[in-house]
Amino acid sequence: MRRPAIDFYFEFASTYSYPAAMRIAPLAQAAGVSVRWRPFLLGPMFKAQGWDTSPFNLYPAKGRYMWRDLARICARHDLAFRRPDPFPQSSLLAARVAHAGLEAGWGEAFCRAVFAAEFAEGRPIGEEAVIEGLLQNLGVAPAPALARARSDEIKAALRAATGEAEQAGVFGAPSFVAADGELFWGHDRMAEALAWAVRITARAT
Amino acid sequence: MRRPAIDFYFEFASTYSYPAAMRIAPLAQAAGVSVRWRPFLLGPMFKAQGWDTSPFNLYPAKGRYMWRDLARICARHDLAFRRPDPFPQSSLLAARVAHAGLEAGWGEAFCRAVFAAEFAEGRPIGEEAVIEGLLQNLGVAPAPALARARSDEIKAALRAATGEAEQAGVFGAPSFVAADGELFWGHDRMAEALAWAVRITARAT
Repeated sequence: MRRPAIDFYFEFASTYSYPAAMRIAPLAQAAGVSVRWRPFLLGPMFKAQGWDTSPFNLYPAKGRYMWRDLARICARHDLAFRRPDPFPQSSLLAARVAHAGLEAGWGEAFCRAVFAAEFAEGRPIGEEAVIEGLLQNLGVAPAPALARARSDEIKAALRAATGEAEQAGVFGAPSFVAADGELFWGHDRMAEALAWAVRITARAT
Repeated sequence: MRRPAIDFYFEFASTYSYPAAMRIAPLAQAAGVSVRWRPFLLGPMFKAQGWDTSPFNLYPAKGRYMWRDLARICARHDLAFRRPDPFPQSSLLAARVAHAGLEAGWGEAFCRAVFAAEFAEGRPIGEEAVIEGLLQNLGVAPAPALARARSDEIKAALRAATGEAEQAGVFGAPSFVAADGELFWGHDRMAEALAWAVRITARAT
């Protein structure tokens, strides 16, 4: 039987991507689902809609609610929470390093470290020194990792992930795409997405 | 002990308000929560944000996803689903009649009838003849109900509900507001909102 799988599209600046990234690995393991981590950039999609910042900044009532809702979610799942300032943080460097890490085997741990630094500790993840510190904590030599992150191949890999997300219908983060193309948007659809992946795999065998 | 209570803000043109309105009564009863039904108008809020139609129309990828997500939700909860055309439907008349019905005692049943006509049968709820038929099915004489719905008092009551929603921080529908002001947005936060209402009431006694 083919193992159930799901694409996990997330963006380091995205608030609801934080609980999704911190929680998906044990939930997916328990469900028997393989997760393909796909960091991408929401910025180009937002720009195409005429937005120059997060919609949570453009629509203050929605933004106020989101911060409160996120705090409730983090409390429920025992995740520390601190609101990043400024919001959104610059996520380009982290996304490139994550793609380098995902090809090298330390990507998932790095992604969780970035989200924790940003949303549990309120640290500026756009700064190279912060990223270097996270890499060192993971036992990864920063200089070659950053060099790889800035290579043309990794830049292209990040652009490709963003393009694939758009092709799959993704318009926000986190999003989950099953093998049959079924799209789920939001941390609150994560369990449903995993269950879907299991169901379509069982049906196909 | 004071009985837990929640304000249920919804809009007849709102897609996710449909499953919320169809499901809230038995869930609230099981939780021991009183629900105050508050039909309001999203249109003025959307206009204030510079939108002249639903954001699901303005942002096509988000709209495509919403229809699919709504179909999944309806399937899960055994609710018939048919996409209204055009979308959004004009909701002003239904909202006014609902306010008349809520003061007269047939409001909740009328609200469910409107949502079912719109989202299960795809009927044009902006048309007076459709509303008249729904009233007749409920054993309510249409002419006096429609006259009351068009009275200055009911027009003011609908404006007041919309104003109270905005004051409470509501920016979309459905929304739920607990007695302590805690706001929950979306059909997928309904159970959490009911649990919150129960918890704060238990804490206060």
